[in-house]
Formats: sequence, C-alpha cells, structure tokens
Amino acid sequence: MPGGRILDRSMERTIKKIVILGSTGSVGTQALDIVRAFPDRFEVVGLCNGSNTPLLKRQIDEFKPRYINTLGDVDSGYGGSLTSPVEEMVSLPEVDFVVAATVGCAGMSSAFAALEAGKTLGLANKEVIVMSGNLLIEAARRNNGVIIPIDSEPSAIWQCLEGEVSEPARLIITASGGTFRDRTWSSLHDVTPQQALQHPTWDMGDKITIDSATLMNKAFEVIESRWLFDIPFERIDVTIHRQSIVHSMVEFSDGSLKAQLGPTSMGQPIQHALFFPQRQPNKNLPKLDAVTMGPLTFERMNEALYPCFQLALEYGTQGGTYPAVLAGADEAAVALFLNGYIKFTQIPEVVLETLSKHENTSEPSVEDIGNSARWGIESTLARHKKPTIVN
Amino acid sequence: MPGGRILDRSMERTIKKIVILGSTGSVGTQALDIVRAFPDRFEVVGLCNGSNTPLLKRQIDEFKPRYINTLGDVDSGYGGSLTSPVEEMVSLPEVDFVVAATVGCAGMSSAFAALEAGKTLGLANKEVIVMSGNLLIEAARRNNGVIIPIDSEPSAIWQCLEGEVSEPARLIITASGGTFRDRTWSSLHDVTPQQALQHPTWDMGDKITIDSATLMNKAFEVIESRWLFDIPFERIDVTIHRQSIVHSMVEFSDGSLKAQLGPTSMGQPIQHALFFPQRQPNKNLPKLDAVTMGPLTFERMNEALYPCFQLALEYGTQGGTYPAVLAGADEAAVALFLNGYIKFTQIPEVVLETLSKHENTSEPSVEDIGNSARWGIESTLARHKKPTIVN
Repeated sequence: MPGGRILDRSMERTIKKIVILGSTGSVGTQALDIVRAFPDRFEVVGLCNGSNTPLLKRQIDEFKPRYINTLGDVDSGYGGSLTSPVEEMVSLPEVDFVVAATVGCAGMSSAFAALEAGKTLGLANKEVIVMSGNLLIEAARRNNGVIIPIDSEPSAIWQCLEGEVSEPARLIITASGGTFRDRTWSSLHDVTPQQALQHPTWDMGDKITIDSATLMNKAFEVIESRWLFDIPFERIDVTIHRQSIVHSMVEFSDGSLKAQLGPTSMGQPIQHALFFPQRQPNKNLPKLDAVTMGPLTFERMNEALYPCFQLALEYGTQGGTYPAVLAGADEAAVALFLNGYIKFTQIPEVVLETLSKHENTSEPSVEDIGNSARWGIESTLARHKKPTIVN
Repeated sequence: MPGGRILDRSMERTIKKIVILGSTGSVGTQALDIVRAFPDRFEVVGLCNGSNTPLLKRQIDEFKPRYINTLGDVDSGYGGSLTSPVEEMVSLPEVDFVVAATVGCAGMSSAFAALEAGKTLGLANKEVIVMSGNLLIEAARRNNGVIIPIDSEPSAIWQCLEGEVSEPARLIITASGGTFRDRTWSSLHDVTPQQALQHPTWDMGDKITIDSATLMNKAFEVIESRWLFDIPFERIDVTIHRQSIVHSMVEFSDGSLKAQLGPTSMGQPIQHALFFPQRQPNKNLPKLDAVTMGPLTFERMNEALYPCFQLALEYGTQGGTYPAVLAGADEAAVALFLNGYIKFTQIPEVVLETLSKHENTSEPSVEDIGNSARWGIESTLARHKKPTIVN
C-alpha cells in the first residue's frame, strides 16, 4: 500500500495465554465469548471470580483453566484446577495477557502484579487506574508491561491514537448521560435501585450502571484518560452524546479529529484489546450501519447537574490518596444505595463526607493507596448500617 | 506512553523542499498558506501554474522559487527563476515533496515523473489516479515513491488507517450531495453555471464544484480510493452527510469504525499531507468544536438521482482506458457547460456519448492512458463548439 503502511497479511497465529479476573461478571463473560469464538488463538490459563459459583463451574468445564481463584467452593470434581493467589496467577511465566475485569478497588494489587511481571493488562476495572494513576503507568513502563484499555471510551481514544506520532491536543469523551439524563438531580430523590439500573444505551454490571447514572463513571474515565494518555486534565472534555455510537474522539494539534464508532456493545473493545494490534472478523459481534446511522447529537455537559462528576473531578485532580478514597467511598455508597440504606441523591453527599474527613497524602506508595481505598470503603460503610458489597 | 506508542517529541526540524503544481489554484494557494505559516519547515523549489500571471508573480516575489513553469509570461524582472519543464522540475534531486494540484487530465505525466524519481506526491488532482489507477500505485512502489492524498475524503481514510495493521473491511465516503442536493435531476435543466458554482459546504475550484454538483466527483473519489487503499469497489460505500464534518470513515473487520472529522476546510488535509506523519498547531486553520457540533446526519445515497455517479462507476469499474476517457470527457463537458455550450443536465449525456464511442484497451500503458484522455477531451469538444478549457 502506498505511504509505507505495513499490512499484517500473515495474521500471526500464536496462541495468547490469558487470565481473566472477574470471569463471571459482565466483561469477564464477554471476554470468554471472544475466546470461545477463536479457540485457536486463546488459551485460558486462569480464572478468578467472586461468588457466582455455578457459572464459574461451567466456565471451568468449558475452558479447563489450570488455575482458579474464587470466593466460592468448586473443589469437588474440579481437581484439574489449582487454587492460586491472584497475584501469583497473573505472574505465571506462561501468562501473556491479563483481563482485569473485577469491580472496584480490590483489583488493584493484581493489576500491579501483572504489570510488575511484564504482562499485557487489558484494563476494564477503571477504579484501579483512578486510584493509582501514574504509579500504575510507571509500573508498566519499568517492567515493559503494557496497559490496553477495555472500557469503550478509553478504548476509542486508544484506537484514535494508533499510528499517531504527535501528542493529542484534546480528548473528547462521550457520555450517554446515563439513566436519568432527562431529569433534574433534585427530582431523583426517591428513585429505586431498579429504576437506576435501567441504562438507556449500555448493558453493563450494576456498579458501573449506577456510576453512569450519577456520572461518577464519566469522571472516572476523565481521570483514567489523564493517566493512560499522559494528557493534562484541562485538555479533556466531555460531551453528551445520547446515541452512544461515537465512543470518544481525539483532536490533534492541526485541528483534525478522529472518532471511533461502533455498536453499543462491549464486544468490540474487549476483542480489540485481546487481538491488538490485529483486527479479526467475528460474526457474533453486532454491527453498526454507518451509511444510515444517526442523527448523532453532541451537547455540552452541564456539570452543575451532576454533583458526583463535580466532586470527583475536584478531588481526583488533586491526586495523592484522594482518588483512592473517592473510589472507595463511591464503591461503598453505591452498595449502600443498592441495598436500600441511602437514597440515590445521597450518593454524592456520602462520598463527599468521606473525602472531607480524609487527610491527603501527596506522594503515596501503592500500599498507601490500597490502605486509603479500604479506609474509604470502611469509614463510609461504618457511618451506615453495613451491607455486603454487591459486585 | 503505555502500549508502545512512540511520540515524536523531538519534532524533526528538517526543511522539506517542495514543488507546487497548480500554485495559483485553490489547493495551490492554500498549500502556500501552510508554507508561509512554517517558514523554517518548507522551502519552495518550484512553482507551476496556468494563466493567472499576476498571482504567480506575487508568489515568485514571496517564495523565490528557483524553478517555474507557466503558460503566462513572467520573464521580465524574475531572472532568479528558471523556466523548466514540469517533469524535470519534479525530478530534481533537491525536491522532497510534490503537490499535484493542477486540474484535470494534464497533470498525469508530472505525477508519474515525481513518483518515478522516488518523491512523495501530495495528490489533490484525483483525475490522475482515476485515469491511471494501479499503474500509478505500481510506479510509486517500484521507485519507493509515496502517494499521500490531499483531497479531504481520501485524506480522512488515510488518517483512519494510520497505525492499523489489518486490512479495512469497508470504506465509507461521505458526500455533501453538492449544490443541488435537494432538487431532482430533471428540475436542473436550466440551471446556470453561476447557480451550479454555489456549493453548500465547500469553497473549491470551479471544475471540482461542478463535479460535486453532478456527483461525478464522488464517483472519482470511489475510484481513487479503490486504488489508493487497495480495496475492491464492492467494499466502498457512499453516504450523504450534509454537514461535511465527517470527511470519511473506515470500518474494520471487527466492526469497529474510525471517522476523521474537521472543519469544512482544505487547510487540514493539505497541512496533514505536507507534515505527515507529524501534526503541527496552525492558528490560521479553522477549528471544529466537537463538543457542541452537529447534529450529524447520514443517509443512503439514491444513486438513481445521480446519472453522472452511475455512469462513472459503470465505466470506471471496467478499467482499461475507460477511466481516462471518462475523466477527459467529463473535463470537456464541464468546460462546455461553464462556457454555455451545453445545459447542466447534458453533462452525463455528453460524457456517455464519448464513452460509448470508445474502444476499450484492457491492459493500457501510461501512454495509452494519456492518449485516451486527450481523445476523450478532444472528441467531446469536437462535437460542440470548441471553448477554451477553464481551469
């Protein structure tokens, strides 16, 4: 092809050996759908989940991982799999790729372990990079580890930056606006968890769906992008794009922009991360007909309507241990809401209260960050009747 | 940056030595605007134009090219510049980059000469690749020449393909629909050249503006993209996008799409070609505010409404010398219309008549192609009162 493009027509056929953390969750099961569609390209070395034991048993039967890690009990009849600490599993010499798809702050240590071992980390669990920021990037750089985003918005930015040699001028993250995008914040006092879990465009796990309804999730994506793409906060914008077709955009210094588009499906970004830099046809994935799509609308976000977005950026941009406390407090507040202990509109109040009690450490260690996140969770729960964290 | 991106932070500072063919036309003057904005990055070695002598004289005064080629007379007082045949000028050892921005079929031999000499060719004159197709690509490949598209649609596709290692699944070229997009073909019988030259979104030269009104230009872009990006015709779609903000899109095999967006300005694609692969801020270029743009609409093109599009694809896809005759006949028909010799709606009839008289050569040489284009022009003009070709 003219212009020096190098097409990889040979389609490298090595088998990628993967570990999936959070295998029974929304992203984990969709990652296994990709593995199932390409049995000659992937081998599942390890699976890790929480408490959905029946599904994990089926996954073990089908994918026959050598290692598992679970809060449940799958011993009987599954002698083929060894129970292994997550940090050890992701560091095994035979592992190439780790899908970090657990929910919340607990995924941090395994993400660091994978990068310290020089693995490629497919990062769906954005709380990890929100909490640890540049420390995660440095861990990757120091050990020749690679972080590929799996979440659709940072995946879109990643794709738009492919092949570009100059710094981006501006990132434009799209936001559907979430479940309650046509309502004022003050009208949301009495919404139920069931109502809040009805996302207008995306089918996702519970925690991220609530975070989308409060726009906390969008603030997390801004913080994630700041570190992942090494760009100051003031060069990251958010636009309300109700159709969730443009997954995000990059503006370059010459005024040219690139956008990544696709169906409202996590299948594409998960597959892209697993196959990067290759592309592969997959008839199981939904398609977008760009010839007739739209209309596509873009509106400036009125930040005043979203108290979670505002407070997350206010504390997130200060760095130190604040982002970890923010992630922990939000994880607890969402669990409190889902379990009926607080109202939807109390989520930002509860998170802010925790943040305001925290004394920030400006140059934290990874351990400080883990401790701060746990403190954020526990001190938030301690002020309310303590529910079980719902993943 | 994680993921192995290599940012070119050193910002290579070598001076690119350029020749501009068609320097007094729309693309030529805008290319010189870029050169003027970056005096330490470009040096104008040669200028070539048609008959706008006053403007060429000003360009010679400002940019002091060592070589010129013009149909006009600029001898007196411009002893610093040597008159040189275009094919020699573009082949000079000191030349790095040739902007091919002449209009119509006559630009072919200089484009081949530049590629034979291993230069980088910024191709705005799409007739050249419509006529010669794979022969131009092979000339580039054989001599380590590079073709970078300057036209906004193929430039958009080029940008979307940057860094991709897998073949594109589909190209989606956007079309504004041209001057008469809200009128039926049969209602256009009596439109004047002045009416036809009012493009709804783009400010361009006369010939391409008429080609846009007939959608001949869009068929040329389909043919251009078929060769430039080595993709079969059946994987190239056209969508009517009235806002001219999305300049074109690429769909990949995994269902992910990328779009390139920007203001409705040739400045961005010209600058991108000149600086490729770098990006550079340029305060003179208009900006697009993507946060509030749109709405963006996309409609399937009803090909039956556009006889020029249909006949161009019918003959263009057959290859051989047909595309050259098509380009030549269209160039003559547009000139006949602009000079009042034929009606607007006669353009496809006149082009079809020429094509139907042509005996196709299936494996033509470059010389065959040049001869066929000239025959296409001359036999079309000969059937009507012969005007001067208007560039």
